[in-house]
Amino acid sequence: MIHPVSPGSIFMLPHGTRIVQRLQDFLRQEYKRYGYDEVMTPLIYKKDLWETSGHWQNYMEDMFMVKSGKESTGCCGGAHDEQEADEGVYGLKPMNCPGHCLIFDSTQRSYKDLPIRLADFSPLHRNEASGALSGLTRVRRFHQDDAHIFCTEQQIVTEISSCLSFVDRVYKAFDFPHFDFTLSTRPDNNYIGSINEWDHAEDALKKALDTTGRPWTVKEGDGAFYGPKIDIMVKDSCGKSHQTATIQLDFQLPQRFGLKYVDEKDQAQTPVIIHRAILGSIERMLAILIEHTNGKWPFWLSPRQAVILPVATPFAEYATQVAKSLSGSGEPNGADSHGESFYVDADTSSRDRLNKMIRLAQQQRYNFIGVVGQKEMDSGTVNVRTRSGEILGSMTVDELRSMFSKLNANLQ
Amino acid sequence: MIHPVSPGSIFMLPHGTRIVQRLQDFLRQEYKRYGYDEVMTPLIYKKDLWETSGHWQNYMEDMFMVKSGKESTGCCGGAHDEQEADEGVYGLKPMNCPGHCLIFDSTQRSYKDLPIRLADFSPLHRNEASGALSGLTRVRRFHQDDAHIFCTEQQIVTEISSCLSFVDRVYKAFDFPHFDFTLSTRPDNNYIGSINEWDHAEDALKKALDTTGRPWTVKEGDGAFYGPKIDIMVKDSCGKSHQTATIQLDFQLPQRFGLKYVDEKDQAQTPVIIHRAILGSIERMLAILIEHTNGKWPFWLSPRQAVILPVATPFAEYATQVAKSLSGSGEPNGADSHGESFYVDADTSSRDRLNKMIRLAQQQRYNFIGVVGQKEMDSGTVNVRTRSGEILGSMTVDELRSMFSKLNANLQ
Repeated sequence: MIHPVSPGSIFMLPHGTRIVQRLQDFLRQEYKRYGYDEVMTPLIYKKDLWETSGHWQNYMEDMFMVKSGKESTGCCGGAHDEQEADEGVYGLKPMNCPGHCLIFDSTQRSYKDLPIRLADFSPLHRNEASGALSGLTRVRRFHQDDAHIFCTEQQIVTEISSCLSFVDRVYKAFDFPHFDFTLSTRPDNNYIGSINEWDHAEDALKKALDTTGRPWTVKEGDGAFYGPKIDIMVKDSCGKSHQTATIQLDFQLPQRFGLKYVDEKDQAQTPVIIHRAILGSIERMLAILIEHTNGKWPFWLSPRQAVILPVATPFAEYATQVAKSLSGSGEPNGADSHGESFYVDADTSSRDRLNKMIRLAQQQRYNFIGVVGQKEMDSGTVNVRTRSGEILGSMTVDELRSMFSKLNANLQ
Repeated sequence: MIHPVSPGSIFMLPHGTRIVQRLQDFLRQEYKRYGYDEVMTPLIYKKDLWETSGHWQNYMEDMFMVKSGKESTGCCGGAHDEQEADEGVYGLKPMNCPGHCLIFDSTQRSYKDLPIRLADFSPLHRNEASGALSGLTRVRRFHQDDAHIFCTEQQIVTEISSCLSFVDRVYKAFDFPHFDFTLSTRPDNNYIGSINEWDHAEDALKKALDTTGRPWTVKEGDGAFYGPKIDIMVKDSCGKSHQTATIQLDFQLPQRFGLKYVDEKDQAQTPVIIHRAILGSIERMLAILIEHTNGKWPFWLSPRQAVILPVATPFAEYATQVAKSLSGSGEPNGADSHGESFYVDADTSSRDRLNKMIRLAQQQRYNFIGVVGQKEMDSGTVNVRTRSGEILGSMTVDELRSMFSKLNANLQ
């Protein structure tokens, strides 16, 4: 849902929230595998921080500024001098990197601690022009599966390879038929660092790209001023291309923040930062996935995983009981309480005849439709069919639970 | 972690984030049981919305105002007239209620849809005076397990009872030895609505309080101007009292937003809103739980659930393998991949002798300490002891997993 009181900020309704959360949970699960630590960082930071990061000088027009409501009442009230006014000015974060640099810098770091991989799902705000706003794909408030890797120069190849493997893992789960890697290299002008450093970094990225066994292309001179990057473009099932994941090397930010670690020889060294997002903007990825699946979500991502329909009113209670057991909405600590739960409803409205209810459930894109009558109630079973009409037949509630659990675990 | 660039906004480091997430997951699980739908709503809203809600008139000093970075560059630049300037002024939300009212109002609602229970974990910002800021208990940015229940007047007693049962369920899980309910009634002056409405509402709250079987007290005249409320005070293990959960009836906001539902007789009616939070501020609850547990987290909330220690270097690989299997950090789809995962580390540094490593693990408050040597490696087992030193002896990895899973499910 969108609303004119907050242009570019999406209201995620209950089913959208279910999908976003499933995506985040999936990423969290993979973070354990790939060695990331999730953190939660503030949304507003004083001017000083944005000056250190360079956002104040270069990015301010794309940011939102935050002030105390006390001071905002009168513009130029004259009561405050300039310094005081500055004290109360915050920037609403468009990126997580400065906050993560503060965490890195909060304690002494040794080469043994590296790489440190900090992940963050914080909401980000960028002040896109109102004319540029578009659905879920171009918004002002969005969430990323954002992370920053602080590592040594020697660790760059391994870390980039790991990021590319992460992309592969996630995009295969989405069943994207096609995705491309692009390497963007040193701009002709306006770059920082030495040509030697850039060559070294670009070589590292090329080496990592080669290990994927996938084709990749080069965009000469298209890198950011602070380092080269790899962008990932996804073709959806309609053949449209979208930029999603990004993996960026950054030599500048660690210097601006004066970040240091102590190396094997007890010398202070500056780490490298890798900015990376696998889904990219979760809102944009949601738009791509809606197009890609045409609303027919695979079970593991589906906000409507199953519905239980009674053949007649006397079986409504049993239908409800089955749905409660599978959806984890029964009594706490009851016999029904199991670890895993699913999005399972019971439609006990009985407004319509069974065939019509099944058709409605298919239109609502429930992945599985369970029908229950006398036979099912007596035997503790459900008669199951899929969204596409395939009949799976009679299954016990435990069999159904176990099938659902496997589909979830296998990302199907 | 705190930092002067964002006073009152907590940086949640990895272990803090684990606890916050476990609390949110626990609440989400209970939301299924108690019939809540989670949503994600915008953080910034234009002035109009805050005027409708009344925050602009009554709460502005406690809010942060947000403007485009383009406009903030020069105060009184003169380029914009007042109306244009107002267009670009947003309030950073201190509460979720106005956003939830917009969702309620986005479609026609029937009495059959009610109650609608919208839950939201959005970050909230309140501009507390810098002198008032204190640790985790008084902050500027915080998260609530916030929800708003839109219901009919007839549903008030049932809904309030359900909220009180929810409090009971959660606080029992925390093992709080003592918590009190307080009813705050109509203020002598400055209230909206008729005395009749207030009496009716207070009776409903009293009825619900009586069903809990717990003692409760009355604070005469201490209700909000928009309705009576129930506050819950928790005594921690040190005997200190903290205000945490709150359940507030609100007749005013639905009127300000012109919210309507269609009743049985096809007449438009105004719903009642119940504002309620069970944990209250998650940051504050974290502070209370730290005090309450003295850092000895029960297994289900623990950021360090177990550590595996090899008796000597040759068993480091086996220790790592066990930790990976239990922590879900093995290969995707590998034999090691199971649904549930736990916070399990392997300490393979082997800097110290076993006894010292066990002592260190106890100091770090790992709930379980597993030791592995030749015998354990040969039999695929772990020798387990608890944080307090109780010896559980030899267990297979699957037995350990199953014990962990049960502790999690039983909130122990």
